[in-house]
Formats: sequence, structure tokens, C-alpha cells
Amino acid sequence: MRWARIDDAGTPTYAIVEGEALLPVTGTPFGEWKKTGTIRPLAGTKLLLPFEPKTFYACGLNYAGHVREVAAKIGQPATLPTQPDVGYRANNSLIADGEAIVIPQDATEKVQYEGELVVVIGKRAKHLTRKNALDYVLGYTVGNDVSERSWQKSDRTLWRAKNTDSFAPMGPWIETEVDLAGLTTKIRLNGREVIQFPTNDMIFGVVDFLVAMTTYLTLEPGDMLWMGTEGATENMKDGDVCDIEITGIGTLSNPVRRGA
Amino acid sequence: MRWARIDDAGTPTYAIVEGEALLPVTGTPFGEWKKTGTIRPLAGTKLLLPFEPKTFYACGLNYAGHVREVAAKIGQPATLPTQPDVGYRANNSLIADGEAIVIPQDATEKVQYEGELVVVIGKRAKHLTRKNALDYVLGYTVGNDVSERSWQKSDRTLWRAKNTDSFAPMGPWIETEVDLAGLTTKIRLNGREVIQFPTNDMIFGVVDFLVAMTTYLTLEPGDMLWMGTEGATENMKDGDVCDIEITGIGTLSNPVRRGA
Repeated sequence: MRWARIDDAGTPTYAIVEGEALLPVTGTPFGEWKKTGTIRPLAGTKLLLPFEPKTFYACGLNYAGHVREVAAKIGQPATLPTQPDVGYRANNSLIADGEAIVIPQDATEKVQYEGELVVVIGKRAKHLTRKNALDYVLGYTVGNDVSERSWQKSDRTLWRAKNTDSFAPMGPWIETEVDLAGLTTKIRLNGREVIQFPTNDMIFGVVDFLVAMTTYLTLEPGDMLWMGTEGATENMKDGDVCDIEITGIGTLSNPVRRGA
Repeated sequence: MRWARIDDAGTPTYAIVEGEALLPVTGTPFGEWKKTGTIRPLAGTKLLLPFEPKTFYACGLNYAGHVREVAAKIGQPATLPTQPDVGYRANNSLIADGEAIVIPQDATEKVQYEGELVVVIGKRAKHLTRKNALDYVLGYTVGNDVSERSWQKSDRTLWRAKNTDSFAPMGPWIETEVDLAGLTTKIRLNGREVIQFPTNDMIFGVVDFLVAMTTYLTLEPGDMLWMGTEGATENMKDGDVCDIEITGIGTLSNPVRRGA
């Protein structure tokens, strides 16, 4: 099942995506819901962020190739993580499918995409096991963890390198039926494929993170976990369009603007 | 004005603290509100978290003495921050005044308090100036940034060292009338004062952070910023009570338990 969110006369409303149709519901996929009986066309309907996240967790360095690339870019030795230590991003940076990534005027040209699998938590969770962890996942969406590499190198935290307003496009919807092992991430810049990788080829997988995290902390419905990206990334500039496709989930597409 | 939050027959309700009385309101201090006309005694009333925060920002190393102490504890050289790079914590870790800090059973004995000034954002804010930044602050409360020092040393992020459930006591209320320069933070362990410091003696102050942050990101009503702590900290153990007082704001008091 695919869950999108649309604007219904000023009210954010969840809608099931069925083929080319949107079926609005009352309620939310995190709890009870019921179809309203109305139908809207998917084509031409502006999709909102697929949900309003609570805590924004991010895995950081979670693919071996990317760890080596980032280390080289910021001039530090590459060290593969030895345990699933989660990090954080902030919700101010989120934008929906189709909305513009706005590069601040004082950013360098090194503003780069990172295509990521996003895990959406569906139920309150603590002390998950390897066996039950995925039962607490509502579904998956697609994220672009936009990164300004000069700030990533110069700053003590990732506050502006990765959390500048508009630096976290996410969408287009939440897919609940996903075979993690079968996913492929494909990133296109202006239609040209720049990288393709097996989405699940992570240093620590979704289950590893959920089990480790919930040993110490409680996850809530609406919390989310961005799983990191693979490989080298390229610069994006004013006028570009960046697409992140994860097969079986969908394609997140965002234009890029340089702020005035 | 002091804003607390209480449970009114299952509904979290804001209330003005006047002397020994609580005056419940309809609405919230972030928008419109009106006194209900009822009065409840402050004594004996359980206070909730003073508000439900959105993004939980934290300044990290922001007092010179503490930077040197932490560096020594985790065996790294002390480096004073050269710019206000903000970090993040997670809301799962929050507990209210009077609630128990629960130390996980596999934590070492090095679980320590950190008394911090908490800045509560009242209005949507971007591109703040040194002149108007404090106009966007609703008020201030008190936080205890509980830290497990062995995890702080071993892990790549602070996810369990500082974000384990119950590791962020906050309260008891929001004080809106504050003279930052006049505040003193006093930390007591089982009634014994362990440290006292001028709260505003920060490497980067509230205005520095708000101006820097909003150059790149939008703050929302209900976002909050923990300002860091000063000096050496001590271990807390099962049965202890830790009080963080900031003069002019109030005292946050929490018992400590070791989890089973």
C-alpha cells in the first residue's frame, strides 16, 4: 500500500495511492483510517511531505564506498563504523517532492545529493528484537540528504552542512510493502544516471539499527530513520533537477536553485 | 510570567504560576490563551514537561572549564569551539521535574549531571539579528543533560551517551522574564552543592547561537536550545537526587534509579 498526503482545502489529508488515483481517508496510517469515498487524480495533484516526522534520525556513514569518498573529500582518514551509532537531522530542512532545494548564496559549489532509504516508524517501540523489529515499521520512503561539503569539513556538527532549510527533500509517498533485499537506488542529475547501488548493501541494516537504538531509547510513531547513501556524489547547481529513485518505492524529484 | 503544564483530567493544560497558585488557561503561551478562572495549588500538583518540544537543539561544549574537563575525561585534547555550531538531542530522552533518571543496567558508574539553561523559541524565526533575536524567545527553563561518559567516549555520536530514555530532565516551568546576565546555575547532589557558575558565562551566548542558526534554518515555536554546562561533573548513582537551580527561573529536581 502507498500512502501519500495531499492538501484538501487547507487540511493535510492522507490518501492511498492506487495506480493513477488518490483515495483520501479520514484518520492516519499510524492509527485508524477510513476511505472518504472520494477520488482524485494522482497526476497534477501536489503531494505534501508524506507525513510530519517527529524525531529525525540519520545513520550517517553506512555504505563502505561512501565512507571512503567522504573521508577523501574532507581530508580525513576513512574509518568504517564498528557499531550502529545513529545521528540526528532537523525537520526544518524537509521539503516535499517537487519543491526546490535552495542553496544559500554563501555556500560553495560543493552542494551534493545523497540518495537514502527512509524508514518510517509505525508503532511505539522499545527493546525490539531481530525477529520483530520490522513489524514496527509502517513503511519506507525516499530522502535526499543534501550536503554542503565545505561546511561538513569546517563545522563541528552538521547543523548547516546538512540541515539548512530545504536540504532534506523527502517523498513522494510511503510504501508499506517492501522487500529490502530487492531494492535498487538510482540517482539521476538532469536525467543522467550518476550512480546506482543495491539499497540494502549497508554496513548496518535497518534491523541492526532498530534493535540497537531501542535497547536504550523509545521510538514513536512518526519517528524516522534515514539509512545513508553509497558512492561518490556530484555537485548540484542552479537549474539542475535531482531524481532519487528507489525501485519498488518511487522517485523523489527536486529542482535546485541558488538563493539570491 | 511563569508557564507550567499540568494534567487536567487527562488533558495537558498550560497554567500560569502565581506564587503558590496555578491558574489554568485555555490555549497556549505560544499563541492565544485565556484564564479559565479556576485555581489549583502549586504544592502537591504534579507538573508535566513545561511544553512538548519540536526540534531539540543543544550547544554542546559551550563553557571553557567544561570543555577542558570533558576532554580530559574522554582522553582527547581540549579545543575551544571557534564558532557556534549547534548539535541535536532527541525528545525520547525528556522527563519532567520529579521523574526518575533511570540508568540502564549496562551503563558504567560514570553517569553524570550537566545543568543547562534551556531557551524556548516562541515565534517562527529566520534571519534574526543581534538586536531582535531575544524577541523570538518565549522564555527559559532548566535542563539536566545526563551523560554516560564511557559511551560518550566510545560511540561515534551521542545517541545513547546523552539520549537514552530519561536522560534529559527538563522543567519545572518556563520563566518569561529573565535577565540573562544576572543568572547563576547551582547544582546539588543529595542537597550538597557540587558546582555554582554564572549561567551566562558561555563561549557563545544565546544571541550568538540564534543569529548564526537562523542564517541557514527556520526556528519554529516550540523548538528549544540547550546552552551547555560548566565545570567538572560528578557521578550519580541509584538513590541520589540531583537538583539544578537557575536563580530567577527555578529548580529542577530528579531522583536517580539504576534499571533492573
